[in-house]
Amino acid sequence: MAEYLAPLKDMHFVLNELADLEGIARLPGYEEFGGDMAEAVLDESAKFSSGVLSPLNVSGDRARIRWEAEEGGRVRMAAGFREAYQQFIDAGWNGYSADPEYGGQGLPKLLGAAVQEMWMAANLSFSLCPLLTSGAIEALELSGSEAQKACYLPNMVQGRWTGTMNLTEPQAGSDLAAIRARAVPQADGTYRIFGQKIFITYGDHDMSENIVHLVLARTPDAPPGVKGISLFVVPKFLVNADGSLGARNDAYCVSVEHKLGIHACPTCVMAFGDAGNFGGGAIGTLVGEENAGLKYMFIMMNAARFSVGLEGLGIAERAYQHALAYARERVQGRDISGRLPGNVSISKHPDVRRMLMLMKSQTEAMRALAYSVAAHHDAALRHPDAEARAQSQAHVDLMIPVVKGWLTETANEIAYLGVQVHGGMGFIEETGAAQYMRDARITTIYEGTTGIQANDLIGRKIAREGGATVKTVIAQMRATEAELKQAGGQIKAIGEALGKGIAAVEECVAHILAGYGDDTATVSVGAVPFLRLMGIVCGGWQMGRAALVAQARIAAGDGDAFYPAKIVTARFYADHLLAQAAGLAQTVVQGGASALEIAEEML
Amino acid sequence: MAEYLAPLKDMHFVLNELADLEGIARLPGYEEFGGDMAEAVLDESAKFSSGVLSPLNVSGDRARIRWEAEEGGRVRMAAGFREAYQQFIDAGWNGYSADPEYGGQGLPKLLGAAVQEMWMAANLSFSLCPLLTSGAIEALELSGSEAQKACYLPNMVQGRWTGTMNLTEPQAGSDLAAIRARAVPQADGTYRIFGQKIFITYGDHDMSENIVHLVLARTPDAPPGVKGISLFVVPKFLVNADGSLGARNDAYCVSVEHKLGIHACPTCVMAFGDAGNFGGGAIGTLVGEENAGLKYMFIMMNAARFSVGLEGLGIAERAYQHALAYARERVQGRDISGRLPGNVSISKHPDVRRMLMLMKSQTEAMRALAYSVAAHHDAALRHPDAEARAQSQAHVDLMIPVVKGWLTETANEIAYLGVQVHGGMGFIEETGAAQYMRDARITTIYEGTTGIQANDLIGRKIAREGGATVKTVIAQMRATEAELKQAGGQIKAIGEALGKGIAAVEECVAHILAGYGDDTATVSVGAVPFLRLMGIVCGGWQMGRAALVAQARIAAGDGDAFYPAKIVTARFYADHLLAQAAGLAQTVVQGGASALEIAEEML
Repeated sequence: MAEYLAPLKDMHFVLNELADLEGIARLPGYEEFGGDMAEAVLDESAKFSSGVLSPLNVSGDRARIRWEAEEGGRVRMAAGFREAYQQFIDAGWNGYSADPEYGGQGLPKLLGAAVQEMWMAANLSFSLCPLLTSGAIEALELSGSEAQKACYLPNMVQGRWTGTMNLTEPQAGSDLAAIRARAVPQADGTYRIFGQKIFITYGDHDMSENIVHLVLARTPDAPPGVKGISLFVVPKFLVNADGSLGARNDAYCVSVEHKLGIHACPTCVMAFGDAGNFGGGAIGTLVGEENAGLKYMFIMMNAARFSVGLEGLGIAERAYQHALAYARERVQGRDISGRLPGNVSISKHPDVRRMLMLMKSQTEAMRALAYSVAAHHDAALRHPDAEARAQSQAHVDLMIPVVKGWLTETANEIAYLGVQVHGGMGFIEETGAAQYMRDARITTIYEGTTGIQANDLIGRKIAREGGATVKTVIAQMRATEAELKQAGGQIKAIGEALGKGIAAVEECVAHILAGYGDDTATVSVGAVPFLRLMGIVCGGWQMGRAALVAQARIAAGDGDAFYPAKIVTARFYADHLLAQAAGLAQTVVQGGASALEIAEEML
Repeated sequence: MAEYLAPLKDMHFVLNELADLEGIARLPGYEEFGGDMAEAVLDESAKFSSGVLSPLNVSGDRARIRWEAEEGGRVRMAAGFREAYQQFIDAGWNGYSADPEYGGQGLPKLLGAAVQEMWMAANLSFSLCPLLTSGAIEALELSGSEAQKACYLPNMVQGRWTGTMNLTEPQAGSDLAAIRARAVPQADGTYRIFGQKIFITYGDHDMSENIVHLVLARTPDAPPGVKGISLFVVPKFLVNADGSLGARNDAYCVSVEHKLGIHACPTCVMAFGDAGNFGGGAIGTLVGEENAGLKYMFIMMNAARFSVGLEGLGIAERAYQHALAYARERVQGRDISGRLPGNVSISKHPDVRRMLMLMKSQTEAMRALAYSVAAHHDAALRHPDAEARAQSQAHVDLMIPVVKGWLTETANEIAYLGVQVHGGMGFIEETGAAQYMRDARITTIYEGTTGIQANDLIGRKIAREGGATVKTVIAQMRATEAELKQAGGQIKAIGEALGKGIAAVEECVAHILAGYGDDTATVSVGAVPFLRLMGIVCGGWQMGRAALVAQARIAAGDGDAFYPAKIVTARFYADHLLAQAAGLAQTVVQGGASALEIAEEML
């Protein structure tokens, strides 16, 4: 099986031509990441992804992680993962996005997105460990005390210690108000944590010296619901004053889940305060204020949601590479047009070609959309102008549920097509195509299901602000549409399809604004179809921008075959994806009542 | 985990109100299968499916089959399968569709479809064994010599011997022209068979006394390509003149595949003539004429394709039942409309409701379409009027690729939604929802991929006859549309949506007829989107017919809540599925060129 190869050409195109990497590299603090440096970072990341992470993807899937009862419950990673992780942190990758103050590289989100995409494509199970650590670092950077930062951040940034997020409990999944884990304050200012958490990614493993658990729990006097949840840091091993590791804390992985995919990633049931190491309770310290835990978690969660969108992108790219390689090499049947002699590779068959183009065009649209949102994220943090920062932040807030929801749902469709391209071989595990489908399946669920994303999109991100930001995006898309329509041929046709897509979005936004609040349930039936529509149209917008750049390059005499291919890929996207827009709008606008009307017992 | 419960109410509704079971039971030879008898058959099948087959579905998935090197390679089924199979044949189920002359029950296809749906829903892996045997029985009934029939059919119909189809070779998947297996004629009229076959379902197992392999191979003087393929019967154990079992034939399962799903079903690599039991070659006899093997196989294949469509239906129904049970019992979060107090079951959340209604409405549409095609199949065989037989046969021929392609693709979407309804629990194998997704994945591939079905649909079934049959279907759908539009409210809205769907089909048919032959490659890019469109619209037609029946019942004073639920389900289908029709037509008509235009090396 061929290893993953980072799609550097398209990545550079998106970074430079669509997401303005040079502009980002002019923002304060990002000055070193322009041109050559960006290229060097991507090259090194590509090499590491192909050479170290990718070869462990299949073997990790087969070997899975191993839970052992020793030491109160521990996890052993699949062969090769410990060594790969050591190489990963030795090369300094773990701190790629972290503050240089704690030893991080401080990469712009834009460049970080490309780097993350590679790791996720190469080995999703592996990539989740640094992803969780990054989230924990971010939460501590933003909300931790100076003592907590000094104690944890240097080792976490370096990667000697990893991080986790402990939110879910059996009765508290999407509804965090139902959390029951308890935190009892002690005379010394620490807390004792009691409770069980489930679905804890990398809750235990043998790749790092320590694991820093961030845990949501309730203090004794906390108000009910989400307003009574606090955030605690609970290390696996307590940390002595001199920074050395102390006693084993009462936080154990008591079992692991048997999952459909990401087999090499430990998904743990964590017990806090059950073993009684210290006479009851795991020892933790409060992060920030009491009862403000959810707010801190949501800061992490937004970054995590964006990253899960990138997981979708990574899997989609890899599934495409795998299917394309097979389609090129598998010879079966004759050319239906009769133009080619003898038997041909299946990549020549129209339906296989259609599937490959669906995979390719959507993956490119996903990449362009995700990276452009990452660039806005950088501008929101670093732009010198406050108004520009606010606008970019609003753009990011609007787009995060789209990136999370649309990229992951589409990745599942793409991985599904990848199996189909392989025919019968796709169903055989040794082929490898099925793993992408199994691995992708979690991405529409964790960090908030697609339904949760879609409700966030129509409620908090659109209705609550009267659609201000989405209308700005619509205006930007209309400008691209106008540019496209000024051209002829393919480009004009793309502009026309984009125009119909934008009109569909406008119709839905008006519907959402009119109905949300008065008849929220009916409007909410259309939330996921609307999220899909937003994804398709915003992806089409980016593909339209890409086609305009390609057209300009061709007009300037650039003979690179990449540019005509980009234009025809954008045209395919218009014919096969943007064509769905009007139907989706119809479902959003009309489809609410019939979903709710049926009597529950008649389901 | 709850066991499968056959949806008897909807089955009876479709059988009686939409597919005219009473009319079928008036056809010669089917007279005993009306009213009470049909009900008794369905009740018994339901009981067997829930009580015997369903409990082995999860345990079989986990235990998988076991291959052993003993006896030249043999397969051991998971615990409980042998006993279940014995009960199955003791109860006479194996011969449900076979000719009474050989001990079969001779059930009409219509009733048989409902029975098959139950087995497939209860345990897809198990159901494939009798499915393959049925296909082999049908091939021998139609094409075997009297001696072959006498030798094999009684035991196969009874189920003491099972059957297989041996088509695929490593280099010959969708392209059977590439088959290389050899058949060398012997002086005694038998043949010696040499070659390897892959993906052989139930190629070996320990549930029956003998296995009757039907094998495609080439005789020494055969012309190249599909015109030189002959069909042979090659039993695992040779049969003595007195009907007792003789020597072990040289046909061995040399390995089994490690698959994404249907883990309890052995998918075998079969070696013919490798072991040298008889000095070279497995002993076989020719079925029918030399070089006509593909024709005989296609007879079986059409029945098999219809049945694979039913597999999709069965899995969809079961995934829906599983998700619905979870959604009713899982309490999480508040009612978004604020009307219900406290926390509510997730079935109350609009997006979960939307997913459940997508599962329910499409499953019902799939059932109505499949059963109506089965009724046409019965009419094609038994109608006293030759013209009526011919019309029904044409309808069946047109619809088989739709039933195979659309039901299986939709089943995959439904099983995917079933996982999503479960949230994080859906990704955990113990929950059971993921198994349906894994099992469903093969159904769009075997017996001809969706791409193969779609090419069959637009080429052989539409273009070759100038669209005659599809135009008849369009006229029938237009009549239903007109009836729907005469009513008011929901029913009228369904009629309007159906009308737009039919217009989309018409547009595509005109496009196919205009382009097929001259520019087949471009038209073929739209084949799968067109198949999807046909499925959605024909399913919507059946849902419209169902709504009309329900309306009439309500008007007649029938207070059964089933009828208003059917109407709102049909309305939901119109809003969420028929709404896609125009976009699909646009893709079919416009989307060919951009798929083919890109340079192959730029994929």
